[in-house]
Amino acid sequence: MNSTLNIGIVGGRGYIAIELLRLLNQHPHITVRTVISRQTGTVGDLHDSLRHCVPIASLPLSQDYAQLIDCQIVFFATPSSIAMQHAPALLEAGIKVIDLSADFRLADPAEWERWYGKAHTAPQWQRAAVYGLPEINRGAIKDAQLIACPGCYPTAIIIGSAPLLQHTTQSRASLMVNAVSGISGAGRSGDPVHSFVECAESFRAYAPTGHRHHAEIIQTMRQFTSSEVQLTFVPYLAPMRRGIHATITTALPHIHQDDIRQWYLDAYHHEPFITTTDHCPSVAEVVGSNRCHLSIYRSNDNIIIFSVLDNLIKGAAGQALQNMNIMYGWPETLSISQ
Amino acid sequence: MNSTLNIGIVGGRGYIAIELLRLLNQHPHITVRTVISRQTGTVGDLHDSLRHCVPIASLPLSQDYAQLIDCQIVFFATPSSIAMQHAPALLEAGIKVIDLSADFRLADPAEWERWYGKAHTAPQWQRAAVYGLPEINRGAIKDAQLIACPGCYPTAIIIGSAPLLQHTTQSRASLMVNAVSGISGAGRSGDPVHSFVECAESFRAYAPTGHRHHAEIIQTMRQFTSSEVQLTFVPYLAPMRRGIHATITTALPHIHQDDIRQWYLDAYHHEPFITTTDHCPSVAEVVGSNRCHLSIYRSNDNIIIFSVLDNLIKGAAGQALQNMNIMYGWPETLSISQ
Amino acid sequence: MNSTLNIGIVGGRGYIAIELLRLLNQHPHITVRTVISRQTGTVGDLHDSLRHCVPIASLPLSQDYAQLIDCQIVFFATPSSIAMQHAPALLEAGIKVIDLSADFRLADPAEWERWYGKAHTAPQWQRAAVYGLPEINRGAIKDAQLIACPGCYPTAIIIGSAPLLQHTTQSRASLMVNAVSGISGAGRSGDPVHSFVECAESFRAYAPTGHRHHAEIIQTMRQFTSSEVQLTFVPYLAPMRRGIHATITTALPHIHQDDIRQWYLDAYHHEPFITTTDHCPSVAEVVGSNRCHLSIYRSNDNIIIFSVLDNLIKGAAGQALQNMNIMYGWPETLSISQ
Amino acid sequence: MNSTLNIGIVGGRGYIAIELLRLLNQHPHITVRTVISRQTGTVGDLHDSLRHCVPIASLPLSQDYAQLIDCQIVFFATPSSIAMQHAPALLEAGIKVIDLSADFRLADPAEWERWYGKAHTAPQWQRAAVYGLPEINRGAIKDAQLIACPGCYPTAIIIGSAPLLQHTTQSRASLMVNAVSGISGAGRSGDPVHSFVECAESFRAYAPTGHRHHAEIIQTMRQFTSSEVQLTFVPYLAPMRRGIHATITTALPHIHQDDIRQWYLDAYHHEPFITTTDHCPSVAEVVGSNRCHLSIYRSNDNIIIFSVLDNLIKGAAGQALQNMNIMYGWPETLSISQ
Repeated sequence: MNSTLNIGIVGGRGYIAIELLRLLNQHPHITVRTVISRQTGTVGDLHDSLRHCVPIASLPLSQDYAQLIDCQIVFFATPSSIAMQHAPALLEAGIKVIDLSADFRLADPAEWERWYGKAHTAPQWQRAAVYGLPEINRGAIKDAQLIACPGCYPTAIIIGSAPLLQHTTQSRASLMVNAVSGISGAGRSGDPVHSFVECAESFRAYAPTGHRHHAEIIQTMRQFTSSEVQLTFVPYLAPMRRGIHATITTALPHIHQDDIRQWYLDAYHHEPFITTTDHCPSVAEVVGSNRCHLSIYRSNDNIIIFSVLDNLIKGAAGQALQNMNIMYGWPETLSISQ
Repeated sequence: MNSTLNIGIVGGRGYIAIELLRLLNQHPHITVRTVISRQTGTVGDLHDSLRHCVPIASLPLSQDYAQLIDCQIVFFATPSSIAMQHAPALLEAGIKVIDLSADFRLADPAEWERWYGKAHTAPQWQRAAVYGLPEINRGAIKDAQLIACPGCYPTAIIIGSAPLLQHTTQSRASLMVNAVSGISGAGRSGDPVHSFVECAESFRAYAPTGHRHHAEIIQTMRQFTSSEVQLTFVPYLAPMRRGIHATITTALPHIHQDDIRQWYLDAYHHEPFITTTDHCPSVAEVVGSNRCHLSIYRSNDNIIIFSVLDNLIKGAAGQALQNMNIMYGWPETLSISQ
Repeated sequence: MNSTLNIGIVGGRGYIAIELLRLLNQHPHITVRTVISRQTGTVGDLHDSLRHCVPIASLPLSQDYAQLIDCQIVFFATPSSIAMQHAPALLEAGIKVIDLSADFRLADPAEWERWYGKAHTAPQWQRAAVYGLPEINRGAIKDAQLIACPGCYPTAIIIGSAPLLQHTTQSRASLMVNAVSGISGAGRSGDPVHSFVECAESFRAYAPTGHRHHAEIIQTMRQFTSSEVQLTFVPYLAPMRRGIHATITTALPHIHQDDIRQWYLDAYHHEPFITTTDHCPSVAEVVGSNRCHLSIYRSNDNIIIFSVLDNLIKGAAGQALQNMNIMYGWPETLSISQ
Repeated sequence: MNSTLNIGIVGGRGYIAIELLRLLNQHPHITVRTVISRQTGTVGDLHDSLRHCVPIASLPLSQDYAQLIDCQIVFFATPSSIAMQHAPALLEAGIKVIDLSADFRLADPAEWERWYGKAHTAPQWQRAAVYGLPEINRGAIKDAQLIACPGCYPTAIIIGSAPLLQHTTQSRASLMVNAVSGISGAGRSGDPVHSFVECAESFRAYAPTGHRHHAEIIQTMRQFTSSEVQLTFVPYLAPMRRGIHATITTALPHIHQDDIRQWYLDAYHHEPFITTTDHCPSVAEVVGSNRCHLSIYRSNDNIIIFSVLDNLIKGAAGQALQNMNIMYGWPETLSISQ
């Protein structure tokens, strides 16, 4: 086991951190060396279900990064503004950083400031970061030192629309996206609006005129289409713990549904985690896995694409491991195949 | 109490029948005289929560309709094909019929046969039936003998789009509807796909290319718009017992959102059950009531309208009572104001 | 309407307050005059589902009680320690107070201090308060000025065990109670342990060796039994919004189950809200009502009693109205019959 | 891979079969050769989430067992009465059988007939079967040819009470068990009482005076105590998909809680799947794992033991694999450690 890499994790309390610890615990080539959290104790104290798995002390974050300096990889599973503050020192010490927060997803500091309400403190690293969506960016991920892991909505929406946009010949593409999230998408929330009492037996939209993930989606789409994309993105909360179910609609009257389906089969044929199904995929069939299930329908002039995944795995922790596996040349499905 | 009207109900086991009994039980001007159900006993045997409320014998349906003949109103809360078989005899005997099933919603026998897979047995009454959506059809309801109560999706979608369509000057309007239903929308189902185990913690679309309610929606829209309506309607099941949350989207680039909102305020200002809100309405805020909450947003060229209601009340039993109140000149909110 | 009584409510944000407002809104003999809450605005701003029902300003609580002084009745739907601070001035002004918090449930100041961790500030009113459980205390309630409304667990447990204890001839009765609560029993909580993510798909006990309601239950049982009661009370949280399901077990080998059942039928025959059923009652069958359903079984030497109710209605707001109806000689079921 | 054992599975549609396939799919020493189910096609057709995992044809069961005869192990994940009909021929052909149904759990044919309502057709194998609860029976399992896998309730209750009963010196022990199950405990049910609509937001007991698992529990307890056990067992359904939460209570006034806790620590110290915790264990913390979490409290004279597990894993499929691992001398946690 002396050949395993040392892993550090900053942020130990959130739902993404739990998934990350659970998945890393099964990975043969790494050892979780340090978990940095506001709370001291052991990971078992934080999470009863990990009681026997990761007996590692959780410590307050120090200025000299002594607890992280002998790690080869550090994951940030923190709220926004933490990674941009601490990652630069680690990166300069040669450590690879995989950031699951939003800090390095937008390349443009002005755009970041617009959505997150403060100036970015590491704009040079914003530009250096690689957007960690393997199905779109595998080449760049291989050589990256800093990965900005995509959000859950962008992962579902970009995977679900990339083949469509890549084949678009129009100068302007208009996408309508209705995307439903499980409640864990809001994080480990102390807001009563995320309580069981106020979420169960309900369903509602939020932020119908502007969600932070909008900018991230558009920026990434520009990588693979020269069309101007007009994106209408309405997010919803459904009474389930996990999952993203995105419905992407666009008018495409003159192309046969089977041809469009073929674009998806071609694009994702070799992808280990993407399946183009012939049924309406359910959130339940992907929860707990790193998979994204797609399907394609036509209604009148409109093409309807369903894209579903587990927001905490393919939309966060699983994707972070997929990035790590690519960066180190390990089998891409290692420890996330189940 | 001798001045109350006698009510008969055919169908006593479904979720809509329970709501109907619960609401009728509070109504001051009627007496539930007979509940006809496959199962004998009392309503209390059928529904524990109604144990003390409606101590009426449930009997098998007889050929001479002896149990119904002294009723002034008969409600059908049955699967499709029952009402069209039995309602004509009652109607000919002068009884008013309020049908909560789909049997009389489509005026065209061919269209009905197409969606329900068999010939309609009472086509003359199909044409005579009044579509029981008060906000659109109040005048005709007043004098109707046979009411075809709208389905839950059509109620949400038509209320949510009528002001928009009434102001449309285009020859062709294209509506995209994503509508989420609670599981009771599937009826009292013995299918494992509606079991707790398979519904909880999941979310999925179904019938993305053709739902029976499509025809009903289009037929009704023709009443108030001369535009050709292209409707893309995707229904979903969410893990909640009740509720419809419809999102209606249409491109309308040149009209200000406030002007569109004003159309809705003008259209529904006097409606006791419709509220145009300034937030994203949740299913929870309407469940248990006969209300429909709307709100209007713009994103890019698109107008987004949310329309939410309780599928078993405003989408079924409450609306049936609202129709009855209108037919008899009683206050429209009687026994459904709560 | 000039003959209605004026009602004030202190506490407008909690789940109990919502139920109270909803029920009072239907009551013919009262007018809700003032709702005092930390948040200003209208009740509609607080609760979307009450938008049209109670258009009353919510104001910060003032020292001279100017907003409450012309009320005949004031309800406290507040966390503990608020009512004991403000109720005395109102009571001295001749106003009747119905307290839904725990402040006046325990008659003994030392016992109160033990469970609530601070000295009681109105011990004279502790002793004067009447425990508002009508099925046990109807006579005293009629003439009370200050009602201490019982908690949800005590209501279910005392109703479920009173006939048993009243017939006990042993000097010592041992009761085992396992009582399951919906999540709203924890109040409008901002604790992530009450979030949807952490409650859904789970079930757990809490406080197995001592719950505040223990003292309240024992104190009340002393009213109707001279036996010493040994109570083992284990509370649980189940993933549902509302409801209490209490299972009460005691060894009673020599009395026939039918005779015990008869004790319950005799005790509750005239009670409008208590039903002794012959099935295992479900939480769903009582939610939304002021009813308590009981049933009695034997297994070996043990008698098993199930007692279920809605924690926010019979366990709180509905019971408060039942008390008010008794205090004013109105029909006991007024506005809570549904 | 030529050294792997061939596995056959009879029953492919139930929730236990899904878990079994999911877990076996990760096991390095076996190959799932055949899945026998009423429905033809592939396992992927049966279960979307296993689409890529087990591409094995599902076939109707034939009389000569041709599809099973080259298997070394056959699992039955069927309703009762199937295994007793087909297992004998397989056993006589030298195949090992692990039955997850109830057919071989009771050694006494008369007792079996009493609970399952028909004569047992393989009584000789009833007596030869080994009860597959490793924590109690590991020695016998090692050499067994036919394993009767315990039910979910018995697993939780026996693990939770064995140390207690083993230390009991009384001639008669009285256990009160309140055990809460998730809805999947009822199987893949087409009964509306297990629908989402009727289960969500509810909680109820069932079979309070006699559950089939009662006999199985008592029979097993006789293995490790000579005391007569009086068991009162009340099962409940909670609105969650999975999980068993058992509360075991017994009067034990003269022994200190810490001493009793020590019995549990001693008994389960070396058990890989049993943890004696110092908090009230939740269903969520064990779901998805083969673990059983225990904790011990005292209230008055009573000892309270909580025992929680995942009914489909430690209560079924995971335990079946644990048995297989023991039978073949593989590490006991192989493929079920996560």
